[in-house]
Amino acid sequence: MAETPADSVGAFIPGPRVERPGSPGGPLAGLAFAVKDLFDVAGAVTTYGNPDWGRSHGVAVATAPAVAALLQAGADLKGKTKTVELAYGLTGENVWHGTPLNPAAPDRFPGGSSCGSAAAVAAGLVDFALGTDTGGSVRIPASYCGVFGIRPSWGAVNLAGACALGPSYDTCGWFAREAAVLARVGEVLLPGEAGGTLGPLLKVDDAWINAEPGTARALAPALAAAEDLLGRALPVEVAPEGLAALYENFRCAQAEEAWATLGRWVEQANPSFGPGVKERFAAAKAMDPAKAAAGRAFRRMFTARMRALLAGGAVLAYPTSPTEAPRLAISLEAQNAVRERTMGVTAIAGLAGLVEVTLPLGRVEGVPVGLSLVAAPGRDRQLLALAARLAQAMGQATSQP
Amino acid sequence: MAETPADSVGAFIPGPRVERPGSPGGPLAGLAFAVKDLFDVAGAVTTYGNPDWGRSHGVAVATAPAVAALLQAGADLKGKTKTVELAYGLTGENVWHGTPLNPAAPDRFPGGSSCGSAAAVAAGLVDFALGTDTGGSVRIPASYCGVFGIRPSWGAVNLAGACALGPSYDTCGWFAREAAVLARVGEVLLPGEAGGTLGPLLKVDDAWINAEPGTARALAPALAAAEDLLGRALPVEVAPEGLAALYENFRCAQAEEAWATLGRWVEQANPSFGPGVKERFAAAKAMDPAKAAAGRAFRRMFTARMRALLAGGAVLAYPTSPTEAPRLAISLEAQNAVRERTMGVTAIAGLAGLVEVTLPLGRVEGVPVGLSLVAAPGRDRQLLALAARLAQAMGQATSQP
Repeated sequence: MAETPADSVGAFIPGPRVERPGSPGGPLAGLAFAVKDLFDVAGAVTTYGNPDWGRSHGVAVATAPAVAALLQAGADLKGKTKTVELAYGLTGENVWHGTPLNPAAPDRFPGGSSCGSAAAVAAGLVDFALGTDTGGSVRIPASYCGVFGIRPSWGAVNLAGACALGPSYDTCGWFAREAAVLARVGEVLLPGEAGGTLGPLLKVDDAWINAEPGTARALAPALAAAEDLLGRALPVEVAPEGLAALYENFRCAQAEEAWATLGRWVEQANPSFGPGVKERFAAAKAMDPAKAAAGRAFRRMFTARMRALLAGGAVLAYPTSPTEAPRLAISLEAQNAVRERTMGVTAIAGLAGLVEVTLPLGRVEGVPVGLSLVAAPGRDRQLLALAARLAQAMGQATSQP
Repeated sequence: MAETPADSVGAFIPGPRVERPGSPGGPLAGLAFAVKDLFDVAGAVTTYGNPDWGRSHGVAVATAPAVAALLQAGADLKGKTKTVELAYGLTGENVWHGTPLNPAAPDRFPGGSSCGSAAAVAAGLVDFALGTDTGGSVRIPASYCGVFGIRPSWGAVNLAGACALGPSYDTCGWFAREAAVLARVGEVLLPGEAGGTLGPLLKVDDAWINAEPGTARALAPALAAAEDLLGRALPVEVAPEGLAALYENFRCAQAEEAWATLGRWVEQANPSFGPGVKERFAAAKAMDPAKAAAGRAFRRMFTARMRALLAGGAVLAYPTSPTEAPRLAISLEAQNAVRERTMGVTAIAGLAGLVEVTLPLGRVEGVPVGLSLVAAPGRDRQLLALAARLAQAMGQATSQP
């Protein structure tokens, strides 16, 4: 097993490092990885980012199957990484464990909730890292930290032994600095899939217009390179009701599910929460059932719309996040404004269970921004292969430090 | 797609049959299957065995990945099968949908909670059927109806899109009349696994002593046949504290988890429940946290014990259930006595996350009883192969009608 990396960016949870050697040989032999501290590793306490959660839950009895599959495939576990408390936030802040440094922009948020996994990969501490993505928790930190990330099709990767936030939205994703490593992990974790080719490329106008002009400019060369691979992009609008409506429907339906999943523990344990998380759980508790029902109804309609659009193999392209990582110094109000604008975009794949790969193919004054490629559920392996080709074409098979 | 089978035993939920054709070709082409009505199939309402559940949950947006994998592998879905309400019971009774007939013993319970799946397979309506097993819900109906059944290692099969009862115990299992079909389904649903051989055979004295003398006698030839394959069985005791202690610890820890998982819905929807189910949810709500904590602590200790015993490939053998299927006419008190005695045995694999295959290799006055083979987590494919060899050796590659 490779040596234990020093934690130069505060990516790992405090305390003794949770390490497990991979099985000898195997397709991932020689690779080091980390897992977000909401995956169970037998013999260790899972904190879910919150000390009260750790205290009120025992030592894990079994290792989550996704983690076990990686160990079985030969990768070495080097530690458990920080997460936003109960995975309920996008900045990556954690007041109990300390917010990981964004290695690509030290005065900015790393993004969350899978903040430690993104930071550990971006800083080169490990080759890849597991996270989870309910409403953007892999895609956003990948974009902010300048690494590759995937949110698989909903249900494609087993989430047994991982703490839930919203089971009908939760997915097990991962980060890597190299597109080829992102794909190799997929060979282990993803189910086999039918063949078929991807295309045409669809430029999602709603999301490009929603993005900062600087973000859109920074990603224009990457879009052009994608057009070289798949042909000229056709403009489409996926949300004529507006991305703000996507966000609002996602928020209401998902908050209800978050409270159904975690509300009982929150009420019984009465945990201390950091700012933002506390307010979100209060809002989840108070969520109007009629609004949540409307959100669920919208979701069904939107899912049908997206699946029809993508059934033949079409690939959506748009900026993963409308902005680069926000500065650490901004106010909670400003954070919330970024969050709403961001989640209007991340809700596209989130509501419809789509697979999304984000590629670190742009910079805004030196700060990373990601381009997303999005496809129909079940096309995960095809999309990872396309992402690797695109990164190669851009001369970015490895993300730039 | 093969024709739609008539429902001769009341195995399917009432209403229009939920059918989906399998993809052309594939390793399961030509096989017909059914799924317990707690797996989502896109476009259909999942009832979870309870009309109020169906009414308060919408049409499923996505198909559960386990079901999608079977369709992708070419099998044809022929319908959704009855389940005990919220999967919380072992007799197979459902007062809303009607209790399926046990095709092997029409005056007896089919066993549950996956009652409809077991009955559909036993009656020859489909080749195999998905169920779930938290505390015995595949193993018991398989034993009662005289078919093959598997409860996989905890976490081995993806449960996304399936209603949960106790996530740290829940597994996705299945039934078949032929051991070879049971194994073929495993090739599609189970992860690849490391090699290694199984053995020695361990005869679990606690469970043989707990069984009715008639059950033990009926399964003695099957045990002898297993010894022909793996060598003379070594006697072991897995629960010196008594099987009743296993049941009690399982009950307390799992009830807490059941209430955490479903209590909020039960309190909000205030559903009508049939007898038995209603009392179990009331008990789950009232569960003493200290008892549940003791149950969880016992579980950790027992898991460590069993994993040490089985790590080298050892296989446990014992009667799946201490009795054949109880008669429909027995009182609720008598049902509960059977339940307690049965769950002391099913808790072995349930607490420790072990893989268990039950084989229909005995009859007590014509009524089926199953022999269980149990191995360490992750040895599912090896155990299925062993079960097929044992069935072949007994001349029972296909279960007897």
